Amino acid sequence: MTAPRRDPEPAGQRRREVTVAGIAKLAGVSAPTVSRVLNGKSGVALDTRQRVEAVIREHGYRRPEAEAPAAIIELVFHALESLWALEIIRGVERVARENDLAVVLTEMEGRLTPGHAWTEQVLTRRPTGVVAVFSELTVAQQSQLASRSIPLVVLDPTGEPMHETPSIGATNWSGGLAATRHLLELGHRRVAMLSGPVQWPCCRARLDGYRAAMEMAGVPIDPQLVRVSTLYVEGGLRDGAALLRLPDPPTAIFTANDLQAHGVYEAARQAGVRIPQELSVIGFDDLPFTQWAGPPMTTVRQPLVEMGAAAAEMVVRIASGEQPPYNRLELATELVVRQSTAPPNR
Amino acid sequence: MTAPRRDPEPAGQRRREVTVAGIAKLAGVSAPTVSRVLNGKSGVALDTRQRVEAVIREHGYRRPEAEAPAAIIELVFHALESLWALEIIRGVERVARENDLAVVLTEMEGRLTPGHAWTEQVLTRRPTGVVAVFSELTVAQQSQLASRSIPLVVLDPTGEPMHETPSIGATNWSGGLAATRHLLELGHRRVAMLSGPVQWPCCRARLDGYRAAMEMAGVPIDPQLVRVSTLYVEGGLRDGAALLRLPDPPTAIFTANDLQAHGVYEAARQAGVRIPQELSVIGFDDLPFTQWAGPPMTTVRQPLVEMGAAAAEMVVRIASGEQPPYNRLELATELVVRQSTAPPNR
Repeated sequence: MTAPRRDPEPAGQRRREVTVAGIAKLAGVSAPTVSRVLNGKSGVALDTRQRVEAVIREHGYRRPEAEAPAAIIELVFHALESLWALEIIRGVERVARENDLAVVLTEMEGRLTPGHAWTEQVLTRRPTGVVAVFSELTVAQQSQLASRSIPLVVLDPTGEPMHETPSIGATNWSGGLAATRHLLELGHRRVAMLSGPVQWPCCRARLDGYRAAMEMAGVPIDPQLVRVSTLYVEGGLRDGAALLRLPDPPTAIFTANDLQAHGVYEAARQAGVRIPQELSVIGFDDLPFTQWAGPPMTTVRQPLVEMGAAAAEMVVRIASGEQPPYNRLELATELVVRQSTAPPNR
Repeated sequence: MTAPRRDPEPAGQRRREVTVAGIAKLAGVSAPTVSRVLNGKSGVALDTRQRVEAVIREHGYRRPEAEAPAAIIELVFHALESLWALEIIRGVERVARENDLAVVLTEMEGRLTPGHAWTEQVLTRRPTGVVAVFSELTVAQQSQLASRSIPLVVLDPTGEPMHETPSIGATNWSGGLAATRHLLELGHRRVAMLSGPVQWPCCRARLDGYRAAMEMAGVPIDPQLVRVSTLYVEGGLRDGAALLRLPDPPTAIFTANDLQAHGVYEAARQAGVRIPQELSVIGFDDLPFTQWAGPPMTTVRQPLVEMGAAAAEMVVRIASGEQPPYNRLELATELVVRQSTAPPNR
């Protein structure tokens, strides 16, 4: 007869079994020191803090009822600079309303990683969870949140998130594929791509979708027609102008976002090149004003409101103790054909 | 010899002289009841609550040190639907960062007055102050904030705020005047105005600026050329199309915001009317994408980032005990001439 056997814990399940006293014992420090670390207070030596955090990471921490999180979602952006951000905010706001949560919005002035002050403030506020958009938290910051059972979800991560960090995105590769196929089906062969910085997974995926469509259609890519630019109008203007100056310029340009595409519009205007008669242009995002551009822009729609909502929902579910059924969710993109694409005239 | 005389309190200066016990005595209720009202708790009869709030309004309330407000600015929007909102958010974020304040952002799904749940939550959070954008708090809501010494600043009020409520806006009347003068100087006489809802002061002021410019130039206004529309693309499309269908259509249209102007662009496109050759169009706001419209839009710039920053700064100053030197601040608008305006061709 064998002894009754407990099933091993399912991998990845959160254990919240250790109290402050238990953590103190395991880390070889006093309970008040553990409390200071848990509450994000200063006055704890760095190595002590790291030892306590390591114990919490390893053994989990059972938060007493009295330490219930505040009814807050932290929403952190690298920058608030286009309707792209506003659409995501709207999605997060919707889910926050449904769950009686306040949204604390932080802009990082263009930096991709929040500073130390942000971390301190967040730990003090004890939010229900954090949604980080197009941002990269340091491993230390991710650990600090995890050690206090504050869930983190990343929307369009800019770096490689820690393996377990859940993230939300769009089907960028499929979007790049659909846009490029549309141009190929119109008869274009000299199809250029303005990419965003390829170290960012969302930009890399759009570029790879372009490459895949070209390869599947048996159309060789002229390396001169692929340029890495910034995700701003100015980048699209500068690199779009460079493409149009080539001895054998492209008949179509697929860009990595709508702002870049607006820059290409301006480059074409300055060069006296008519859209779509002499140049087809496709954007990415479908920001609300693209339909009022001159001419209305063909673009790849990202469901940004839904992406914001999905990120907030995932935070809420994890905070309520659910294990997310997936660590990465990509919502569908969709090609929206308007008037900036037409068959080539040469 | 006369007794030493205390100078009377300067008018409008905040008095925070009465404690919870004092308020209780004046209102004829218990101290715990006063605390319940101050903390936004339920379980107080409406007339009791109102009596307590009236005493606080009349005598002021000295908040004990322990009840210091949270390091939060509440930012409440009727809707997050265009870059207009994002620009204001950026200004508030800037000042919040400088003052180590978190920004709690609330969208009211298009309603102009926040609901009861919002008020309850705000009173519980005890923010440093509230910035309400294009919104209208009820008198009761304004009283509830005032009775707890939570300053309120309104940006572009939609109704008549209570006399003392500080507000921030732009020089809308001057902007309307400058835009209309630009069209008159180009030689236009049939100048139309698409207005927003005139019960909103910002829209009314733009319309009055248009009227003033026309009158000063001695150009009579054809009543058919003034239409009240919505502040959305759809409104500009519908009412712009109606103007273009007139037997004697306008040669120029000044609109109440950029979204309307984009609607007029579309109406002109559908009617085969070229901008600016056959129709001049001027927007209002100078949202970032107007310069990429086809053609780039002449518009009246509102300094939206600065307006958001000014509102947040005013909240911070009032919260720190300063009396604002003004109750109403209007930041300058500026005509930005691009390519959607030209002399008339008839």
